[in-house]
Amino acid sequence: MEFIIDNECINKAISDVNRAVSLKTTFPILTGIKIIANNNGLTLVGSNSDFIIEKVIPLMIDGRKVLEVYNPGSVVISAKFLSEIVKKLPEKIHIKVNEKHLVTIQSNEIVTNLYGFDAEEYPTLPQIDENKHVTISSEDLIEAIKQTVFAVSKSEARPVLTGVNMSVKDSRLKCVATNSQRLALREVAINSNVDGTFIVPSTSLNELIKIINNEHSVLNIFFTDRYMICKSNTLSFFSRLIDGIYPNVSGLLPENSKTTITLSTNQLLKSIDRACLFASEWKNNNVHLEIMNDLKIQISSNSSEIGKIEETLNIKAITGETNLNISIDGSFLMDALKAIKEEEIRISFGGSMRPILIEPIDNLSYLHLISPVRSY
Amino acid sequence: MEFIIDNECINKAISDVNRAVSLKTTFPILTGIKIIANNNGLTLVGSNSDFIIEKVIPLMIDGRKVLEVYNPGSVVISAKFLSEIVKKLPEKIHIKVNEKHLVTIQSNEIVTNLYGFDAEEYPTLPQIDENKHVTISSEDLIEAIKQTVFAVSKSEARPVLTGVNMSVKDSRLKCVATNSQRLALREVAINSNVDGTFIVPSTSLNELIKIINNEHSVLNIFFTDRYMICKSNTLSFFSRLIDGIYPNVSGLLPENSKTTITLSTNQLLKSIDRACLFASEWKNNNVHLEIMNDLKIQISSNSSEIGKIEETLNIKAITGETNLNISIDGSFLMDALKAIKEEEIRISFGGSMRPILIEPIDNLSYLHLISPVRSY
Repeated sequence: MEFIIDNECINKAISDVNRAVSLKTTFPILTGIKIIANNNGLTLVGSNSDFIIEKVIPLMIDGRKVLEVYNPGSVVISAKFLSEIVKKLPEKIHIKVNEKHLVTIQSNEIVTNLYGFDAEEYPTLPQIDENKHVTISSEDLIEAIKQTVFAVSKSEARPVLTGVNMSVKDSRLKCVATNSQRLALREVAINSNVDGTFIVPSTSLNELIKIINNEHSVLNIFFTDRYMICKSNTLSFFSRLIDGIYPNVSGLLPENSKTTITLSTNQLLKSIDRACLFASEWKNNNVHLEIMNDLKIQISSNSSEIGKIEETLNIKAITGETNLNISIDGSFLMDALKAIKEEEIRISFGGSMRPILIEPIDNLSYLHLISPVRSY
Repeated sequence: MEFIIDNECINKAISDVNRAVSLKTTFPILTGIKIIANNNGLTLVGSNSDFIIEKVIPLMIDGRKVLEVYNPGSVVISAKFLSEIVKKLPEKIHIKVNEKHLVTIQSNEIVTNLYGFDAEEYPTLPQIDENKHVTISSEDLIEAIKQTVFAVSKSEARPVLTGVNMSVKDSRLKCVATNSQRLALREVAINSNVDGTFIVPSTSLNELIKIINNEHSVLNIFFTDRYMICKSNTLSFFSRLIDGIYPNVSGLLPENSKTTITLSTNQLLKSIDRACLFASEWKNNNVHLEIMNDLKIQISSNSSEIGKIEETLNIKAITGETNLNISIDGSFLMDALKAIKEEEIRISFGGSMRPILIEPIDNLSYLHLISPVRSY
């Protein structure tokens, strides 16, 4: 294998696939990046037990020649050393691999030799059925993931709850995440000939949104029995799926409420943020909400050792009962509020021990549900 | 005690003195910030076992009233909670303390109560003799510290070597740091009526350069038996001194050399940076330098398990013997090169087992000395 490549190009590709490479792996070959050179371009692959990232560098980018392949071939090179070295090399980089997998990396008068691995020993990528897929813009996918993924369970007690449930039906993608105390739900319109429900690990999704953040393109999503594959022109992200049946959450959504109030999203977020300072002493970050008579809501929290905080906020509109007193987990409410981009929200209360429903005004495509906590 | 203060002003002062506050202290009162309000302004103090930061907020800043003191007094408030709350409060902040040290912090409709400490229990500040001091610009002091402090010993085996030796004599400040394997020395012209030699802990100096980085002012430095005090208009930084006698290093500076070469600082820095990638396997980050016949120097390093790197660099001038082969600690050389701001350096070699001397071209005020390592 032998090629010459523009240093910026290979640096960017290495840093992309490097996101999948972990130094803590029982398989030494997975600490490496697989590089395949052929007449169409260069392919780099990095993987761990949860996800795989594949990046293709074509011969030309924006009409500029960035890559010249002299000899096709493949090798696996230590990700740590490859990325460090290539970052520190100026100008064009000449990479050559001999039959003993010894890699020579040269740039001007700088010559580096690295011991590589046989590419045959690297795991093969899952097969994709190219016919069945979902089409979605990277912006829509990022938003749907960001508005749900924070709500997954951090505990491995029920593995299905550590992932986001993605259901595809009738050109709708529905994303649901819950840890039993709170739930986030988001629906998006898509183009699709897929029908199915899949549980994608939150760790993969958090990486996926980082890596497609700069793509600004249309993505195709494929599902196999064991993988979700998200593809742009030059990037493929393979995430394993979580085995199991996701709980049916439609019964959890409250059908009617005792009190509904409208508030400024940002004002409430800032109040809850302040109240949380004193809430950390409690197991559930208890923050108290109390509706006052005069179209105001009081937000407070206290800690026996440190002190207390108390403030009032104007309610924009209220329907139903006007006396209400509830304690909820302030950090859950903060997470939900941060995920809402609309300026105003509607909060519906079903009573002091029923979950509260938080929805943006004028947007029916998503909602958040949070169970109250006992404050005594 | 009662006052109203501009939120930006108090935020900045809290974040400055907070640098001295540690949550890990055996004295609970030191987890707090002492606030003293009097008719001239507000004084904030934070401290730990190594250094103390005192910041004064006057009543007016740039002709704008930022502080109104209604009742003088003092209190100590938990640094963690004070800084978090004040950061999250909008507009002017009203602080009031009752006789039981209960602090009420109010901003608009937000009311916070914090349990404070009695300010009488806070340690008192060291006394300063105002007559004897060194005068230096903050830029000069920062540069002198940055060019030496990295070279102190990280080991507590000889405590004096964990500090920078600052000697003041005849309007010269000399800073020296060494860990026995390398040495950094810097001299600066100052205004002074002080004569003495002091050892200042590197931890204090590293904090000092961060906190005076935005001062751009003339500083006065005072020394007591146990403290160095660095004062600007509104800020005082007290560092404890290290007890003991600093070794006399003047005998270590080589008087003559076998070979002297001139190189580009930046080119050598980049080469050493690359070579260090393979040097970490060695105890001393061994990097090899070899002068070739044709006005070139070869920089190389290798690791039995990973690979090797080798490159050549042009020498701008050479005097003395042209055959030379030496191994040195690459990270020590990097540190020295990073501290040099001149474009070209002169390196003097006394032989393969003698320390090398690195000096900027056209600047006699500082130098670095590094002992070679055995490479076998």
